[in-house]
Amino acid sequence: MVIERPYLLFLGDAKDALAAKTGQGIVDWRPDAVVGQLRLPGCGADLRVAELSVREAAALGAKTLVIGAVNPGGVLPAAWLTPIIEAVRAGLDVASGLHTRLTSLRDVSDAAKRCGRRLIDVRQPVGSFHTASGRKRTGQRLLTVGTDCAVGKKYAALAIERELRRRGVCADFRASGQTGILIAGSGIAIDAVVADFAAGAAEALSPDNAADHWDVVEGQGSLFHPSFAGVSLALLHGTQPDAFVVCHEPTRQTMRNVETPIASIEDVIEHTVALGRLTNADIRCVGIALNTALLSSVHAADAIAETRRTFGLPACDPLRDGVADIVDALLA
Amino acid sequence: MVIERPYLLFLGDAKDALAAKTGQGIVDWRPDAVVGQLRLPGCGADLRVAELSVREAAALGAKTLVIGAVNPGGVLPAAWLTPIIEAVRAGLDVASGLHTRLTSLRDVSDAAKRCGRRLIDVRQPVGSFHTASGRKRTGQRLLTVGTDCAVGKKYAALAIERELRRRGVCADFRASGQTGILIAGSGIAIDAVVADFAAGAAEALSPDNAADHWDVVEGQGSLFHPSFAGVSLALLHGTQPDAFVVCHEPTRQTMRNVETPIASIEDVIEHTVALGRLTNADIRCVGIALNTALLSSVHAADAIAETRRTFGLPACDPLRDGVADIVDALLA
Repeated sequence: MVIERPYLLFLGDAKDALAAKTGQGIVDWRPDAVVGQLRLPGCGADLRVAELSVREAAALGAKTLVIGAVNPGGVLPAAWLTPIIEAVRAGLDVASGLHTRLTSLRDVSDAAKRCGRRLIDVRQPVGSFHTASGRKRTGQRLLTVGTDCAVGKKYAALAIERELRRRGVCADFRASGQTGILIAGSGIAIDAVVADFAAGAAEALSPDNAADHWDVVEGQGSLFHPSFAGVSLALLHGTQPDAFVVCHEPTRQTMRNVETPIASIEDVIEHTVALGRLTNADIRCVGIALNTALLSSVHAADAIAETRRTFGLPACDPLRDGVADIVDALLA
Repeated sequence: MVIERPYLLFLGDAKDALAAKTGQGIVDWRPDAVVGQLRLPGCGADLRVAELSVREAAALGAKTLVIGAVNPGGVLPAAWLTPIIEAVRAGLDVASGLHTRLTSLRDVSDAAKRCGRRLIDVRQPVGSFHTASGRKRTGQRLLTVGTDCAVGKKYAALAIERELRRRGVCADFRASGQTGILIAGSGIAIDAVVADFAAGAAEALSPDNAADHWDVVEGQGSLFHPSFAGVSLALLHGTQPDAFVVCHEPTRQTMRNVETPIASIEDVIEHTVALGRLTNADIRCVGIALNTALLSSVHAADAIAETRRTFGLPACDPLRDGVADIVDALLA
């Protein structure tokens, strides 16, 4: 499943920048994939790209209208239907990561059938998967893992892909969640796959490749999150990473949406190695990515320096400092 | 989802005893749930229970026709349709663990609708699940875990339930796979749940209970099986067991259907404790169940004695010796 480019990013009446985070992620990490944005009256977000109507975007070659905003509950508001149907009629596919499926919306679905356009619900895995084989594949793989959900695994992986490419190394970001899929234009929402096939889906996500090629795989959840550890382990086994980076948010006290205390970086390294060895005997930790968005720059620098000292590994905030040190260790 | 009792066990034209293993499991572990068997010409299996027609079984109060046999590929043969439809018309529900869904068979589905009967495909989880909360529940839980798939986790759990009840302890076997569900009459096929909700489904499978009550939960896969470890971890976290029993088949060299070497009992104990602590700090191993079906009785006794010495834990073959030693340790 590939989402065709370039995109027109639809922000609807998103109330602020946070609600348009998906659109912002696409602009930040795949600027070449974007022709512009389409906003409704009252929209409080602005991606600072060309303001286009559906017709103007189509004339500029836009292939897909991407829903780049969320609204409370993940439901698609009625006011968004008209521009979505207009996009379909103008010859665009539509891609969405919202809970409400595009294919469940009668008028949208009818219009897409009539116009021969695709409705892409990235939360819904496409096709069927095999159970994982555990067979070692060619090429190299890096997985970002976490002490919790929502600690920056996706952006760490995207920063590593960018730094590898900057150095002339062949690398592909592999998306395992809906926002990552919209950014990358393809991928598999691993947590939406039936449990029996989750590791098999992770194998399909990072197939055989050239010996010097790196797949940089977006992690999910945490081995220590009581809701999602099974997903994390399936992704670890299926990805069979040669290298991993631990992502951590230093102010977090408890895991997201549960009362479980946050896991330690040390425990995550130890168990990722112990369990990851099953499908890759040479697995190693190459660095730690701290998400210091909630810290001042002074406190962030302190936290990063202390992490580096404690673990004897490269540490950085990918969004503040880039990931050059981690990539140095990866390629050493 | 509860399968109503008693059952008429349908064996079709199963070619031998192995093909009727599900039916045999029900007769062995829930004899009171069975009124008899229904076989087609050429059937090579015999459960040694009353031979009944659909009409005779209905007259004896049978509530459900349970498909107690498999055939190659898990597909339901055309010759089985007539007796299944006859059962529906006689007022019985039908329950099946085959890959072919009963609800996908037009004539069966039509007959069930007309007669107001239920078609129960136990591979298909019923209802929706929440993501796991990780919250500690009341009551006590034991989980059987394995060094591989198909090493006797289901029968070890059933034997422990039986021994606990024999001693007057309140206990319930909780089925997590299709055969277990047909034996128990209820349960959740955890591996068929969407990965995101697998741990949540395991929480739903063993809900709050009286302080002195034991849920004995059937394990799935192995933390060291590259295809299914994510399912095993979701079940471990969701079950939050106070106690676990390691199940092992001593002649197995590689994991089922993959080339990965079999895990060691030691590794399974160590990692089950390390990871299980997340949702139950007091988790402990109370014994080892060896599946010695492929060994002579002398070699089986040697293997059991050596396992007991090596780990300093009760060890037994549940089907040869029962599980009294393990239950002693559990209740100590």
